[in-house]
Amino acid sequence: MELIQAILNRHSYRGMYLPDPVPREHLQKILEAGLAAPSGCNLQSVHLVAVEDPALMGEIGGMLHKPGFASAPAAVVVFSKLKYAADGHEYRAQDYAAAIENMLLTITDLGYASCWVEGYVRFYENIAEKLARALKAPQDWHAVAYLPVGRPAQPVQPTAKAPFEERAGFNAF
Amino acid sequence: MELIQAILNRHSYRGMYLPDPVPREHLQKILEAGLAAPSGCNLQSVHLVAVEDPALMGEIGGMLHKPGFASAPAAVVVFSKLKYAADGHEYRAQDYAAAIENMLLTITDLGYASCWVEGYVRFYENIAEKLARALKAPQDWHAVAYLPVGRPAQPVQPTAKAPFEERAGFNAF
Repeated sequence: MELIQAILNRHSYRGMYLPDPVPREHLQKILEAGLAAPSGCNLQSVHLVAVEDPALMGEIGGMLHKPGFASAPAAVVVFSKLKYAADGHEYRAQDYAAAIENMLLTITDLGYASCWVEGYVRFYENIAEKLARALKAPQDWHAVAYLPVGRPAQPVQPTAKAPFEERAGFNAF
Repeated sequence: MELIQAILNRHSYRGMYLPDPVPREHLQKILEAGLAAPSGCNLQSVHLVAVEDPALMGEIGGMLHKPGFASAPAAVVVFSKLKYAADGHEYRAQDYAAAIENMLLTITDLGYASCWVEGYVRFYENIAEKLARALKAPQDWHAVAYLPVGRPAQPVQPTAKAPFEERAGFNAF
């Protein structure tokens, strides 16, 4: 798919997924796209885990009280580690957000749907800690987002946004 | 360009730029790609300004003590506004990072080079405040990144990264 098509076709999908498995080679492409994203001072503060094992997906589904997200046949769990750049600042959120955007575009390109599930994972019922335990993550890596991956059972609808003129300009705000 | 090519060809470029102007229609495509990125709870906390006016680019070049970044014929300045999501949290960095990644991919797709210049703008010599003033941004919108846009005068080189096996896994960290 052309880049611009992937960018315009990517939408957040919260509906049910079909049970068709996602081939390992597709998950590999999704992870590689995520890892190709830039990171602040190249600190590579992101670690990615693709989940496809049905028993594990069942366990994760039990943590998520959202039937749509829980119905996906596969998922990517995004981990982040605090690393300080040479300037003394940290760019964790920027690093994992760029990786997530690359993965969402690739998921779209491969004909799957997904959703950037972050706040729900980080701030609700310790889902982040449960995910980290289930995937055997080291203590210093924190789960920050869950991306379901699968064929959507319903149409994927765009989200309404403010018009271009209100959100961008040329040579002045 | 196919999505995967854009993802793999995008690299951070810190060299000099050729002076060839960037057509307005290309800048428009870059901005549209940025605005198509998702945002936490769809709060659209990002505002984008493309700069092409030579006098303004000269003024901005004077703020940047990096000959490469200052030599670009055009740029995108990324602004961010603090908006709280329904869950009480804020996702500013994630929002602008996703928008920046979409723009960097589109810049690559159109044959230009760029670099995600963030820490230098936010934390060095009040460049962020100077950019906001030069572009007449409202007080509550903060400049967070500068993306030069132009044809690279030198080859664009990839950044070395740790191998896949150290940065990703299947069904376990």
